[in-house]
This record gives sequence, structure tokens and C-alpha cells, in this order.
Amino acid sequence: MIYPKLAVVGCGLIGSSVIRAARAAGAVRAVAVADASAAHREQIAALGYADLVTADVAEAVRDADLVVFAVPVQAMGPAAAAAAPALKPGATVTDVGSVKVSVAEALRTAIPASIHLVPGHPIAGTEQSGPASGFAELFRGRWVILTPDADETPAYQEAVARLSDFWTALGAQVDVMDAAHHDLVLAVTSHLPHLIAYNIVGTAADMEEVTQAEVMKYSAGGFRDFTRIAASDPTMWRDIFLANKDAVLEILGRFTEDLQALSRAIRWGEGDKLFELFSRTRDIRRGIIIAGQESAEPNFGRDRTAPPPGPAGS
Amino acid sequence: MIYPKLAVVGCGLIGSSVIRAARAAGAVRAVAVADASAAHREQIAALGYADLVTADVAEAVRDADLVVFAVPVQAMGPAAAAAAPALKPGATVTDVGSVKVSVAEALRTAIPASIHLVPGHPIAGTEQSGPASGFAELFRGRWVILTPDADETPAYQEAVARLSDFWTALGAQVDVMDAAHHDLVLAVTSHLPHLIAYNIVGTAADMEEVTQAEVMKYSAGGFRDFTRIAASDPTMWRDIFLANKDAVLEILGRFTEDLQALSRAIRWGEGDKLFELFSRTRDIRRGIIIAGQESAEPNFGRDRTAPPPGPAGS
Ligand SMILES: NC(=O)c1ccc[n+]([C@@H]2O[C@H](COP(=O)([O-])OP(=O)(O)OC[C@H]3O[C@@H](n4cnc5c(N)ncnc54)[C@H](OP(=O)(O)O)[C@@H]3O)[C@@H](O)[C@H]2O)c1
Ligand SMILES: NC(=O)c1ccc[n+]([C@@H]2O[C@H](COP(=O)([O-])OP(=O)(O)OC[C@H]3O[C@@H](n4cnc5c(N)ncnc54)[C@H](OP(=O)(O)O)[C@@H]3O)[C@@H](O)[C@H]2O)c1
Repeated sequence: MIYPKLAVVGCGLIGSSVIRAARAAGAVRAVAVADASAAHREQIAALGYADLVTADVAEAVRDADLVVFAVPVQAMGPAAAAAAPALKPGATVTDVGSVKVSVAEALRTAIPASIHLVPGHPIAGTEQSGPASGFAELFRGRWVILTPDADETPAYQEAVARLSDFWTALGAQVDVMDAAHHDLVLAVTSHLPHLIAYNIVGTAADMEEVTQAEVMKYSAGGFRDFTRIAASDPTMWRDIFLANKDAVLEILGRFTEDLQALSRAIRWGEGDKLFELFSRTRDIRRGIIIAGQESAEPNFGRDRTAPPPGPAGS
Repeated sequence: MIYPKLAVVGCGLIGSSVIRAARAAGAVRAVAVADASAAHREQIAALGYADLVTADVAEAVRDADLVVFAVPVQAMGPAAAAAAPALKPGATVTDVGSVKVSVAEALRTAIPASIHLVPGHPIAGTEQSGPASGFAELFRGRWVILTPDADETPAYQEAVARLSDFWTALGAQVDVMDAAHHDLVLAVTSHLPHLIAYNIVGTAADMEEVTQAEVMKYSAGGFRDFTRIAASDPTMWRDIFLANKDAVLEILGRFTEDLQALSRAIRWGEGDKLFELFSRTRDIRRGIIIAGQESAEPNFGRDRTAPPPGPAGS
């Protein structure tokens, strides 16, 4: 048991996965949940993981040793403001927001100095949302990035170490970095991929010469991969792009420059340039598989029902 | 049995899947394979599906009732030229090339008029290549597009119908369309997605402020999805972009325009515009799942080992 009482504010995909995983790991004794959605509160109560489910943020966080804010990024500040008067001095407050500079600032503004604020972000999720889509294994083998303050006091350092133990108990690996660096790294590994996926699916949907039915039927040629992340929650992603505007626009600028060079190579028939890029990119996937962040199965294992290949093996 | 003798020229992922599936369906009696790679010929022989494995294209196609060219797009013309003198009059020749206008033209130039030429393209594959990566179920539930000539003679029409039966026996569904329309549709559903994936992985690899190790560790935020198709065969994809240049550049132009609008919406904080696009794109994925071209499992089923969600279930 790492924290006697856990409070989760916003209990959708991520928040509910935190309470499931914390229960499974025996990392907490009591769990209180605040959520703005009546439908979600009902689902959470039915799951049976929480001792208290309420619409009242202050009620949920009272006496909690760890408070996890798991609402959309732009809702972090208001949720923290609602919690502030009821927070227990010496408690630890963290969040799971996908952007760190602006969220950390919003939390810091709302939360009293007597509280240990340690912003965080689990690099784990799916394209679904809501409490019914959560599961205890979501964080297993994934990374959680913490972006603590420069505060060197033993009490704060102890709070960071304990939060790190909490995530480790949930199956994750923990890294610590600067919030601004987090926002740049995630602009590359998450925000730009989502932007590109939303954009290509939008472009395909707006074609006149090619029907939507054709796009769907022939999507196995590559397009369907992009539709997964383009099916992610619109509120969550609107918030992320607005909250990490500078880093996203910076990375997008580089992507566009590279794309123009690629376009020019196609136009002028420069096969060698294409071949060189297409060979280089394979190594990154190999690295991701070696880093344990992806399965090596072809097609994401979509064809998993297929029998193993013949005697010459794969 | 649909064709007494099948010859496959170029027996990698697609060619070997054709022979596996044809054997499994009992659609052919004899199988001959020609492949330029000695290592692949050894693997194909070891698989035991072929009666003859040779480097000599003419030897393989002799007496064949169906010849399937499954080499990279730019190799189709030379391979067909090598086959031409040995083709049996009245035989059917098809291909599996990812581009149709230029490939059909190359085949038509090489192949005598006494042969029924019916170009084709199975919309199925994985990011792997070579004969060891093939499997009999690859075409099950997927679409095969045929782009036959306008030839109305009964003999030609019969050849098209028989080829269609062949693919149906292998588990696929068959559509017929114009080659130019095929090239535009596939530019949207396959070629642009690959171009974008190669490009984003290249952009990420070239970052100086973010290390490759960071890109790999935190790739579960979305990036890893793109690395799958960016790990596809460089020769195959170089050929495709060069052979379908016009359609690819046209679709890329629209994509870039849309991306600029999205970029501007982020810069000016136009949350409503972002929300509107991000809501619209979800429907396309739903359509693809309904069309049977994608599994509904979150995260492509990567978390499949997770137990089903609790009582409130999804
Ligand atoms: N999904 C991912 O893959 C992922 C991964 C890593 C981090 N994150 C971050 O995790 C956070 C939550 O994402 P999620 O996917 O779990 O979202 P979600 O499934 O939509 O859950 C969010 C929950 O918070 C509730 N809520 C919204 N505003 C609130 C407020 N002011 N007070 C109390 N409850 C409120 C929502 O209710 P309503 O539905 O009524 O709004 C919903 O039940 C976001 O900050 C996101 O950036 C997400
Ligand atoms: N992969 C997909 O997802 C997919 C999907 C639909 C359609 N296609 C199309 O299918 C075709 C084959 O793709 P694939 O993925 O099966 O490729 P692959 O696994 O690389 O197989 C191609 C085979 O053809 C051999 N070859 C190359 N040139 C040859 C020649 N002139 N004569 C005889 N053999 C030759 C290659 O040998 P070397 O290795 O020595 O070159 C290799 O063994 C391409 O036209 C592609 O556009 C691919």
C-alpha cells in the first residue's frame, strides 16, 4: 500500500485505468472519484472500484493522500480550483495531462503551496474514452513522464519518489524531465501523428472523385492505420493542440518542409532519394520493437488468426 | 480446380501468398515459380507448394493457364518481356502491382495479342516482404480490383470471369474498374498514407532536440502506428511513387492545403474548427469497421491480453 487514499478527478479512460490498476496492485486502500458526467459516474459506481463517486470535486479530494487530475487539458485549471480548498496539507497532487508546461502552470496557480505538486503524463492510451474503456493493464511496460519542480526539499523529493513508486506498482516505468522538453518530445511522438492522421482522414473524406465507400472498402492498403488515431476524442485533442501550440507548430513546420522535398523528389523522378529515405525509416520501427513499445507481428497482429508460416518460417 | 497450371513470376509476400491460397483452395493443379532471388527460390522450394522453382521466367510460364506477375512495379515490363515468347496462346496473364495505368501499359506492350491480359491488384498485404512472410489467409475478406480492357469478345469476358472466380476461391471479393480511377483511389487509400508515414518517421529521425531513443521510448503516444507502414519495402514503394506520380502529387497537394488550414486554426486558437474536423473523422473509421476491413478492438488489439472490462463493460 503506497497511498491510503487515492482521489481521481475525471474518471474516463485514463482515470478509470488508474483506479483499476491501483486496486489490482494493492497500491491504495480507499478510492474516491469525482466526475462531471452523470452517465460516467453511474458506470464507475457499477465497476465497483470506488468507495465514493460524486460530482463534487472538493468532496472527493478531502483527506486524499494522492489526487490525480485526469480531465481534459483545458479543464485542469478549473478542476484544481474546485479541489484546492479541500486538499489535505502534505498531500501529493499529480495529473495525467498530455501537455505539461501549460497544465503545470494551471495547477500551480490553483493549488496551495502546502501541497506537493508533481505533474505527470503516462504515455499509454487507446483511441477510446470513458470509464468503460479503461483496463488495469494499460500502463504495463509503458513510460510515465514526471515533470517535478526544482524544489530540493526532502519532503518534496520524498513525494516525487513515492509517486514514482506508485506508477511502478501499476506496471509502468518512470522518467523525469523538464516540462518544456516533454512538450517538444510529445509534439513529435504523439501530437504531430494525431494532427497528420486527422488531416489525412479529413482530406480523404472531402474527395469528390473518390467516394467515401471506396475509401472504406480499399482502406487495407494503409489508410485504415490512420483512422485509428483519427477516431480519438475530439475534446481531448482540441485541448492538446491549443495547449501545446508552439511546439506543435514548430514540428509541423519541419514535417511540411520534409514533405516538400519528398514531393519534389517524386516530381523529378529522383528514385535514389526516395529509396534512401524509405530504407532509413525501417530502423526506427526495429528500435521501437526492441524498446518493448510495439509488437513485432506484421499488420499489428490483425492477421493473428492465420496459422504460422510454412517450414521455411518467417 | 480453376486453372490446371499456375505460374507466379516474383514469389515474395504477395506471390507466395497467392500460391499458398491457391493450393489451400484447390484452385490449381500444378504451380511453377520464377524468382530472381536465389535465396527466395530456396525458401519457396522448401515451402513445398511449387512443382517447379526456377530463375528462368520463360521456363516457369510455359504451358501455364494463368500467369501472375508479382514483381515490383518497375520490374513488370522486363519480366513480361522475358515471359512473352513462352506464353501459351489463350492463357490469362494478370499481375498484382499496386499501380495500374503504367503497369497495364508495360504488360500490354510486352505480351502478344493472343493472350488475355487482365491487370489486377489485391488490396491486401503487410509491411513485410519475401516468401517466408506470405500466408494463405492474406486475401480473405479483402478486395481485389481488376482493370480489364474494353474488349467485349466472349473469350476475353470468359477470361475475366474465370480470374474473378480464382480470386473469389482465394477468399477475396472482386471489383472491376478503370485503371486511371484505380490509381486515384489507391493514391488516397494507400500511396499518400505511405508517403506521409515515411515522411513523419524521417522528420522524427532527423530531430536534434529530441533523441531517437526518446522517439522510440515514447512512441506509444501515436507515433508507433506510423512506423509500421514506414517499415515497408523501399524498392516496392520507390517504384509505386514513380509509377503513380501524377495522382500522388495531386492528392498530396490537397493534403498539404488542408494541413495549412489546420495549422492556421491552431495558430489562431480556433478550437471550434479543430473540434469540427476531429468529430467528422470518427465516422470514417466506423465505416471501415462496418465494411469488414478493420477490427473494432482498441489499439488494433495490441492490448488483447487484457481481461475484458469490468461489469459496466464496453
Ligand atoms: N486517452 C489517451 O490516450 C490519453 C493518454 C495519456 C493522457 N491522456 C490525458 O488524460 C486526460 C483524460 O483523458 P481520457 O482519455 O481519460 O478522457 P475521458 O475518457 O474523456 O475522461 C475524462 C473524464 O473527465 C470528465 N470531466 C471533464 N471535465 C471535468 C471537470 N471539470 N471535473 C470533473 N470531471 C470532468 C469527463 O466527463 P465528460 O465526458 O462529461 O466531459 C470524463 O468523464 C486528458 O488530459 C488527456 O490529455 C489521455
Ligand atoms: N506488399 C504489399 O503489401 C503489396 C500489396 C499489394 C500489391 N503489392 C504489389 O505486389 C508486388 C510484389 O510485392 P511483394 O510485397 O510481394 O514484394 P516482395 O516480397 O519483395 O517479392 C517480390 C519478389 O520478386 C522478385 N523479383 C524482382 N524482380 C524480378 C524479376 N524481374 N523477375 C523475377 N523475380 C523478380 C524479388 O526478388 P529480389 O528480392 O531479389 O528483388 C522478390 O522475390 C509489387 O508489384 C507490389 O506493388 C504489394
